Amino acid sequence: MATLSIRIDLGPENRVGPGKIQLLEMIAEHGSISAAGRAIGMSYRRAWMLIEALNTGFGRPVVEAHIGGRSGGGARLTTFGADLVQHYRAIEQAAAKAAAPFLTGIDGGMPTAGERDTGPPSEAGHRTGRPAG
Amino acid sequence: MATLSIRIDLGPENRVGPGKIQLLEMIAEHGSISAAGRAIGMSYRRAWMLIEALNTGFGRPVVEAHIGGRSGGGARLTTFGADLVQHYRAIEQAAAKAAAPFLTGIDGGMPTAGERDTGPPSEAGHRTGRPAG
Repeated sequence: MATLSIRIDLGPENRVGPGKIQLLEMIAEHGSISAAGRAIGMSYRRAWMLIEALNTGFGRPVVEAHIGGRSGGGARLTTFGADLVQHYRAIEQAAAKAAAPFLTGIDGGMPTAGERDTGPPSEAGHRTGRPAG
Repeated sequence: MATLSIRIDLGPENRVGPGKIQLLEMIAEHGSISAAGRAIGMSYRRAWMLIEALNTGFGRPVVEAHIGGRSGGGARLTTFGADLVQHYRAIEQAAAKAAAPFLTGIDGGMPTAGERDTGPPSEAGHRTGRPAG
């Protein structure tokens, strides 16, 4: 199924996409970076590097240590980190809403409005040779 | 400045993002793949490969050859290709609208609503050690 994904570009080689957002959500859920990493099959080292990239990219921390509780402490999202996740998901939802009719058309293999009748996809022009130009 | 970008994921390793969309727009504008490539500093070979990836990913052509006219022919978008560009830009616009207040907050370095006062960014927690967890 065709799906949408969103990137926030903070600078060259510095992007926030679905992977980092999911990691933040797992930290919020599990209360530690290592448990969050485990939940999505990611090493602690990799998870930590992604968090550091976010901290650096935004110029402020998205995750902070906390002390206490039954498990003796762990990691949690900063208010900014939680805001980031919330806004990312809201942006994603707005984009998905705008995209839904088009993506449904793609998946159904239905011609979009006004498409020329060029026969079934397997006979479409791109298989008949190199495009001109 | 923090900016948004949109990807449409068609399958593993098969995505439509801002680069391919810009290439399609340049083909529409210049009427040939080679001229479109030149306009954005891309080789004909690379441009052609990206078009082929789109054709394969969608199972139908986004670009077609056309014959005639002053220059003796070239390439143009199919109706589907033009629809793709139009929908991509509309999706992007919806996402950008949803993102604007948040992105402005990031760029201005303004705390988002409810952010704790943790001092200036350069003294923020991520520089004081490895996050716990």
